[in-house]
Amino acid sequence: MILELAAVLEEQRQSPQCLRTLARSAVEDVMLLPPPNFGVVDRGIYRSGFPAADSLPFLEALELRSIVCLCPDPYSEENAEFVRSHGIRLFQFGIEGSRESINDSSYTIMEALRVLLDARNHPILIHCKRGKHRTGCVVGCFRRLQNWCMTSVHEEYVKFASTKARPSDMVFIEKFDISQMMECVFGIIYRYHFSGHQARRLVYQKIS
Amino acid sequence: MILELAAVLEEQRQSPQCLRTLARSAVEDVMLLPPPNFGVVDRGIYRSGFPAADSLPFLEALELRSIVCLCPDPYSEENAEFVRSHGIRLFQFGIEGSRESINDSSYTIMEALRVLLDARNHPILIHCKRGKHRTGCVVGCFRRLQNWCMTSVHEEYVKFASTKARPSDMVFIEKFDISQMMECVFGIIYRYHFSGHQARRLVYQKIS
Repeated sequence: MILELAAVLEEQRQSPQCLRTLARSAVEDVMLLPPPNFGVVDRGIYRSGFPAADSLPFLEALELRSIVCLCPDPYSEENAEFVRSHGIRLFQFGIEGSRESINDSSYTIMEALRVLLDARNHPILIHCKRGKHRTGCVVGCFRRLQNWCMTSVHEEYVKFASTKARPSDMVFIEKFDISQMMECVFGIIYRYHFSGHQARRLVYQKIS
Repeated sequence: MILELAAVLEEQRQSPQCLRTLARSAVEDVMLLPPPNFGVVDRGIYRSGFPAADSLPFLEALELRSIVCLCPDPYSEENAEFVRSHGIRLFQFGIEGSRESINDSSYTIMEALRVLLDARNHPILIHCKRGKHRTGCVVGCFRRLQNWCMTSVHEEYVKFASTKARPSDMVFIEKFDISQMMECVFGIIYRYHFSGHQARRLVYQKIS
């Protein structure tokens, strides 16, 4: 029986996507399988290993606008069709998954970060094959941009890489030159203007 | 030099709290220390171990509205003052951290879940001492409500509990009676009404 209180969510930040999933679960009783090594990086930013076909219904529930794929191989037909049919923009930055490659890929990592930072691409999923090394490096650099201390960046990296953690990745993250993200020609920084809850604005600035 | 494109974020779900942190970092160059074992559960829902004084600036950046503390001990004066001065509502559900207790605490877990589910309390942080067992159980039950398959629930639990993972916690989560959350006297379920992006509403229903 439907009774009682109805609350209007008046603030932008409370958009309850996660709770919509709850509501859907209650009604449809669908079992959802997140892709392996799935995690929420921040509001509207997700990370994982390679999403197999059986996790596409889960991805659908995330209402993604974009995917950053760090694997060099083309998407399978099933994934490509999912992306097409849901109007998701796929950004592919092919980085080899081998142990040696990450240092040679700092430009590519920066390109991926740029896509990740652009709120117009959110909600966004970033993934590689296992969600450990390539994804871990991009997320680690993102945390550096958020000014997380290295101890916490390391803790998070290890949480996802587990026994496969690579010291070379950690060094890469630590050495990553944040200022490049701020100062390079096409660098974008974000500035926010608030004039009440309804008028939150994001202004992109180019630094000359 | 300020140039070029200004984009108005027109959708509720894009509120860029994470990017505001970036902007602040760029300007203030403050190093942020998340509490131990920190993680993002979902939009507006965070988890961690006990937040020491040095992670209060990080919590401040999350703009929390509520905290669920699963430890039985009272908050330290410093944390209590932080909570007071930032207008954060503290929900304390004391559960002993010992190995045996979680099965005796299913009612308390349910109470904590109810607070966690209520979007009016978001952004919300749930924590215990290490962010492994008590927090892991609540988040595990939350994932069950989201219809995650047990394999993924387990993967996430282990990610945060690491070598301290307890099979008894996993059994607790697996046995957790979701229907109780849906059907108990004060149970709340969520239903969403959409009439365009601007009129997203959350309606609480009581089941008699």
